[in-house]
Amino acid sequence: MPEPLFIDADDATVSYTFGGCKPIARIMPGEPVRLSTWDCFAGNVTSVKDLPSQVCRFPYLNPVTGPIYVDGAHPGDTLAVHLVALTPIGDIGFSSTFPHFGALTGTHTTAMLHPPLEERVWQYTIDHQRGTVRYRARGGDYSVDLSMEPMLGTVGVAPAAGEVRASIVPGVHGGNLDTPLLRAGSTLYLPISEPGALLAVGDGHARQGDGELCGVAVEVPMSVTLVVDVIHGITTAQPRLETDSALMSIGVARPLEDTYRAACADLVRHVADLIGLDELDAYQLVSQAMRAHVGNVVDDSYTIAAAIDKHLLGTALPYGGAHRELRALSEVR
Amino acid sequence: MPEPLFIDADDATVSYTFGGCKPIARIMPGEPVRLSTWDCFAGNVTSVKDLPSQVCRFPYLNPVTGPIYVDGAHPGDTLAVHLVALTPIGDIGFSSTFPHFGALTGTHTTAMLHPPLEERVWQYTIDHQRGTVRYRARGGDYSVDLSMEPMLGTVGVAPAAGEVRASIVPGVHGGNLDTPLLRAGSTLYLPISEPGALLAVGDGHARQGDGELCGVAVEVPMSVTLVVDVIHGITTAQPRLETDSALMSIGVARPLEDTYRAACADLVRHVADLIGLDELDAYQLVSQAMRAHVGNVVDDSYTIAAAIDKHLLGTALPYGGAHRELRALSEVR
Amino acid sequence: MPEPLFIDADDATVSYTFGGCKPIARIMPGEPVRLSTWDCFAGNVTSVKDLPSQVCRFPYLNPVTGPIYVDGAHPGDTLAVHLVALTPIGDIGFSSTFPHFGALTGTHTTAMLHPPLEERVWQYTIDHQRGTVRYRARGGDYSVDLSMEPMLGTVGVAPAAGEVRASIVPGVHGGNLDTPLLRAGSTLYLPISEPGALLAVGDGHARQGDGELCGVAVEVPMSVTLVVDVIHGITTAQPRLETDSALMSIGVARPLEDTYRAACADLVRHVADLIGLDELDAYQLVSQAMRAHVGNVVDDSYTIAAAIDKHLLGTALPYGGAHRELRALSEVR
Amino acid sequence: MPEPLFIDADDATVSYTFGGCKPIARIMPGEPVRLSTWDCFAGNVTSVKDLPSQVCRFPYLNPVTGPIYVDGAHPGDTLAVHLVALTPIGDIGFSSTFPHFGALTGTHTTAMLHPPLEERVWQYTIDHQRGTVRYRARGGDYSVDLSMEPMLGTVGVAPAAGEVRASIVPGVHGGNLDTPLLRAGSTLYLPISEPGALLAVGDGHARQGDGELCGVAVEVPMSVTLVVDVIHGITTAQPRLETDSALMSIGVARPLEDTYRAACADLVRHVADLIGLDELDAYQLVSQAMRAHVGNVVDDSYTIAAAIDKHLLGTALPYGGAHRELRALSEVR
Repeated sequence: MPEPLFIDADDATVSYTFGGCKPIARIMPGEPVRLSTWDCFAGNVTSVKDLPSQVCRFPYLNPVTGPIYVDGAHPGDTLAVHLVALTPIGDIGFSSTFPHFGALTGTHTTAMLHPPLEERVWQYTIDHQRGTVRYRARGGDYSVDLSMEPMLGTVGVAPAAGEVRASIVPGVHGGNLDTPLLRAGSTLYLPISEPGALLAVGDGHARQGDGELCGVAVEVPMSVTLVVDVIHGITTAQPRLETDSALMSIGVARPLEDTYRAACADLVRHVADLIGLDELDAYQLVSQAMRAHVGNVVDDSYTIAAAIDKHLLGTALPYGGAHRELRALSEVR
Repeated sequence: MPEPLFIDADDATVSYTFGGCKPIARIMPGEPVRLSTWDCFAGNVTSVKDLPSQVCRFPYLNPVTGPIYVDGAHPGDTLAVHLVALTPIGDIGFSSTFPHFGALTGTHTTAMLHPPLEERVWQYTIDHQRGTVRYRARGGDYSVDLSMEPMLGTVGVAPAAGEVRASIVPGVHGGNLDTPLLRAGSTLYLPISEPGALLAVGDGHARQGDGELCGVAVEVPMSVTLVVDVIHGITTAQPRLETDSALMSIGVARPLEDTYRAACADLVRHVADLIGLDELDAYQLVSQAMRAHVGNVVDDSYTIAAAIDKHLLGTALPYGGAHRELRALSEVR
Repeated sequence: MPEPLFIDADDATVSYTFGGCKPIARIMPGEPVRLSTWDCFAGNVTSVKDLPSQVCRFPYLNPVTGPIYVDGAHPGDTLAVHLVALTPIGDIGFSSTFPHFGALTGTHTTAMLHPPLEERVWQYTIDHQRGTVRYRARGGDYSVDLSMEPMLGTVGVAPAAGEVRASIVPGVHGGNLDTPLLRAGSTLYLPISEPGALLAVGDGHARQGDGELCGVAVEVPMSVTLVVDVIHGITTAQPRLETDSALMSIGVARPLEDTYRAACADLVRHVADLIGLDELDAYQLVSQAMRAHVGNVVDDSYTIAAAIDKHLLGTALPYGGAHRELRALSEVR
Repeated sequence: MPEPLFIDADDATVSYTFGGCKPIARIMPGEPVRLSTWDCFAGNVTSVKDLPSQVCRFPYLNPVTGPIYVDGAHPGDTLAVHLVALTPIGDIGFSSTFPHFGALTGTHTTAMLHPPLEERVWQYTIDHQRGTVRYRARGGDYSVDLSMEPMLGTVGVAPAAGEVRASIVPGVHGGNLDTPLLRAGSTLYLPISEPGALLAVGDGHARQGDGELCGVAVEVPMSVTLVVDVIHGITTAQPRLETDSALMSIGVARPLEDTYRAACADLVRHVADLIGLDELDAYQLVSQAMRAHVGNVVDDSYTIAAAIDKHLLGTALPYGGAHRELRALSEVR
């Protein structure tokens, strides 16, 4: 891997929307990038006394580093984003409740007459050596270690149809997918709608439960190394994810059964295409083999990643082996 | 009413997004505007042989005339848009099915393995004298007259947080609400997020069933007369609608029970505020008095207008009587 | 109309399930029945001090009078239940909030961490002369009259497949549909699954808002006159409703868009069948002509009645004119 | 383990509802039972030529062996059902599509105008030695082995409130939960509503994908060994599941976000109670630690099992260590 381009998150390199922003850097496919991202609070939460609703200023939430212009990326192509390495910066992370946000509280759409739940912040200690994050109860002395599983909540490109979407919103352009499987070693495929794709990433999580139940993961600034490729002439209708062992389609929709349907229907068709099955045979195979990974059940749209083990694909290679090539490229160094 | 400003829909005056467009005209509050709108097909469907998926070019769907800059409209204020008159232009209208769109077919989110339903176009004859539109079956000689009830499917302003949304999408900024109650004589209240509000309107329907079941109403170009007001210092969280007899809140969400909840919760709070009830007393009153008008069950978000009869409000006047004043203004002429 | 059979609601004539109960009376098709029903609280709420969660004893909620065995009713037939007259008994009605029940509160399925909303009872005064019910706020002196629009929340028969369902649950067997259109003058069609159909009715409402927002209408004991018919050899898949002017299909499902879909798909197919249209032509017609009446958005399943004006049907008569015949029969007297 | 009671599935020992059936056997807590179950087709599908909609006779679907009366089980108690061993009987299994059933097709509630998908049957070969099931495409010669992961789709007791539910329906009484984690070694906790609990089990799957996408798993007759305990005086509001490593709550609801909410809210409260955290602290912990296992997205209600690793519980033992004791008991032999 050649020396990566470095991009530090700062006021000039972060943005708060997908689309509508000028590129802050330009890369070639295959050229590695190392960048840092701010946490979803834009760094404004520094202790358990900093309530997000007070220290954060809407709409300056969920900053993403970028956008980065990818040379040769044209509308109608697919962008493959391979995450080489993700390392939380520093040794603390924060989570919180947030008024009218989360799965077990009334929200602006699941509107209730209840007053909001208490807003509370939790500080996690990260042990890089042991690979753990330590939860500490606020109302008692209980604490416990959870494994650190760094991921990026938000990876996206400029949306289609000239739309500009807030970085906190997921969509077929990616964005705030909040999928725990967006880890080092995985490749995300996104549809390119604007010249240069206009990639931006952020919202690092030291770990996240399925569905991001309370709406906030263990939020951290993140050091990210990634490398991209452009798959020319192949359109991707909705986000897909590939790891060494699994192929996934990500549904982005509400209600959650539609999220599941959108994920599964895309996976069925992808598998049918890769193996050469008719759709009904692929439907059957996926029905028995698939694992559904719940991403978020709290954002503007929910996400589920429907996954199959790649051994089912035999020798077929999604996107002509893009994941394998990016993986190889990232390991050269 | 003074002589209205005239704006004819043409390539220079229509747009396809809310936000992201330069204003094409500037008006003062209280200054009437007469404008024309193209139909949702941008005029490309001219006979039952013109299949929308073939003659329309994505994303050039659902053109809106505007945006219009409203003098003195500031972020945080509320825009009141009073529809003075709506008249379909010409004497034909079109409806259709559209692949993977509608409530009784698989879609991109309610994803199914079925092939799309047949795409078919229906031409309606409008009788302005009798106030009817005539349905004619394509597969036989059955025909029947339905009452003409002109409405605008799409009325909106620039969204918050710098977002740009396609004109076919509804949101708290209005947009493609597809609410049959957006008729002449009604006043829509929208939150202002950008200077000048940036109002745009389109998607005229000669009539529409509740929920816009097949995804397409009786689509017509429309002659629209409207007049606006700016309510300073009063924020509106989501669209509200007022007629001479009813006050409504419009929910915009998925799934449809959340649409219902969002509409009702806002109405409960609005009623509580106007009458001076506590929320629980207002909850009870609205529970017994409310009528729910289903807008669309086909768009990116669904809409429901929750309505109460204004006699419940006693002498209380929503938005300080803005509807009454706009109504009066529009009748001066 | 011959002298009706009288059935008074008492411990021996009420039940709490559809299915699983022995018939308490036997009638012939065309033989009128006059019966009384208890309110949904089984009469246990007698003042605003009686909190339902304290005075009602689960599962003895929502008593229905019946079941009544209908002579000649066979599985696979359709039962037509025509409501001749509905009169609230007495001059007071009650409504309330109820812990973890209603559309704007966390429930056992829309589970939240909020404590329940305050449980509060409202007493309504019924003015039979003026046809009104008077709402009175609990937290102040505001009061207002609403029109009385008596309806039955619960009309059902024994379910299919040997199931027994609580009377508070709606289903394709009818049950707690909570549809405001179940009024005097309307005919409900239900699928017969057990010999004798086993009809039971209850849950009188002096009036109800769309969706029964807080979960409880203006609950009253009711005097009910009804007459039934059996339509032999015609199966009805889900509840349908007919009035002098409208034909409806009732969807019973969750989420609410599925309720809407189930109602509309049945109506489309019914209309296609009655007029002789192909399904796509009927889909189009219903799309433009239909009104969606939201029944409940609070029960175990939600309900929507999708309605079209019967003038669309020309001379076609649903169920061979059963509604007209029952209507005529009920007016003889 | 003492000699188990043997129960062979036959016409006298299977039933098709939970509730409404006389017990076919009586056991003591701690007394092991070995029984066989028919597959969900009641054995009527014997080759890929047997289409379920033709060879199965509604409502004789999804037979369960039982009900079994558990001595000392009283309403208000909790039944712990520990699955000791599950072994598919024979070496073939069947799956299929079924008209208007499954997640990627229109159904009776997600009603569409599409004709049903093709009904097709797949035969799987089970290799007990290798622990695999072999998928074979019908439309080509592709085949692949999947791991065998035997589970029971249906485990339940008599419902509350005198209800009787078809065995194909899941509910808080258990029933057709279709949770892939109902495997040998797991303990299911169910609320007891009738004397003797009236346990019945069936619907063996050689394996199942998450959500049971097409509505049908790899269906097999099953040899089941189980042992139960009664936890006196402890009520369980909805199904819970425990393994050696994980504690779970199972949500049963629609839409799928409510399923998720119901599962998570119960888990949050259970964890709060076991560890001694306040609810908000438990909400946070579960948010970061939880894995959501999607059970079915096709049945009358959907299911999700929300799981946490039991190391989070420290020394706390759910239900006083019932799982551990049943586990120990089952290993004595």
